[in-house]
Amino acid sequence: MSGVTSPMAVALAEAEKAAAQGETPVGAVVIDAAGNVLASAGNRVEQDHDPTAHAEILALRAAAARRATARLVDCDLWVTLEPCAMCAAAIALARIRRLYFGAWDPKGGAVEHGPRLFTQPTLHHRPEIYGGIDERRAAELLRGFFRDRR
Amino acid sequence: MSGVTSPMAVALAEAEKAAAQGETPVGAVVIDAAGNVLASAGNRVEQDHDPTAHAEILALRAAAARRATARLVDCDLWVTLEPCAMCAAAIALARIRRLYFGAWDPKGGAVEHGPRLFTQPTLHHRPEIYGGIDERRAAELLRGFFRDRR
Repeated sequence: MSGVTSPMAVALAEAEKAAAQGETPVGAVVIDAAGNVLASAGNRVEQDHDPTAHAEILALRAAAARRATARLVDCDLWVTLEPCAMCAAAIALARIRRLYFGAWDPKGGAVEHGPRLFTQPTLHHRPEIYGGIDERRAAELLRGFFRDRR
Repeated sequence: MSGVTSPMAVALAEAEKAAAQGETPVGAVVIDAAGNVLASAGNRVEQDHDPTAHAEILALRAAAARRATARLVDCDLWVTLEPCAMCAAAIALARIRRLYFGAWDPKGGAVEHGPRLFTQPTLHHRPEIYGGIDERRAAELLRGFFRDRR
């Protein structure tokens, strides 16, 4: 890793930018084997009128486009929140090597909650998984966002 | 429904076009409440270098863009194959009213196989589901495709 900025700091900055746009504050970044940022994104569901525009999906799509391949076999994904079922399955389809996530999401998460997708035998790829990275900061961002909307 | 062409025929035509491009032959179409085709697509994973470019995702994104909303509450999705976990979750996120699919997919399907996503309590929307529509034609397309690749 090139060191100065941690990948989760990049993802958190994307989450903050998303919040400023009225989007659910989640950010994601794809890192290659050398530690370079291939792509980063925040949620853009409302701005883009796109139900699939979660941070993870946007970062995976941008990284794959940059690499000109649908499979990111030596890449890692960092995301501020436990991925939902759509994103967890996309992470498997993209053959991501390691998944690092921030806050746990008991309501919508599909990695350690709900369908626990990576434990499903029909999912053909399982990344290494590290949860709870900078969890407090990621969770605070989300709490602040939903508090402001009430 | 305007009648002349069934939505599944449109989806099957998209699957055939995908096969001709070397893509897994799956096609999808989003229909609005009046029976009009809002968007249709075939798989484009390899052509687009996009691990998320399944037919369902592309059709949902195009329909949502056309409607300028992330939620297709009065729309139905027709797809030639039982959706995978990524697509099933995207269908829920898009608030699709009815899901019609063709062939069952015991290996990768996530509706009536694997995680059976729509039975998961953390998935906040469940469409009406109709499987096995023109199943034989959809399955034949897939079988032909995988036979030719061996």
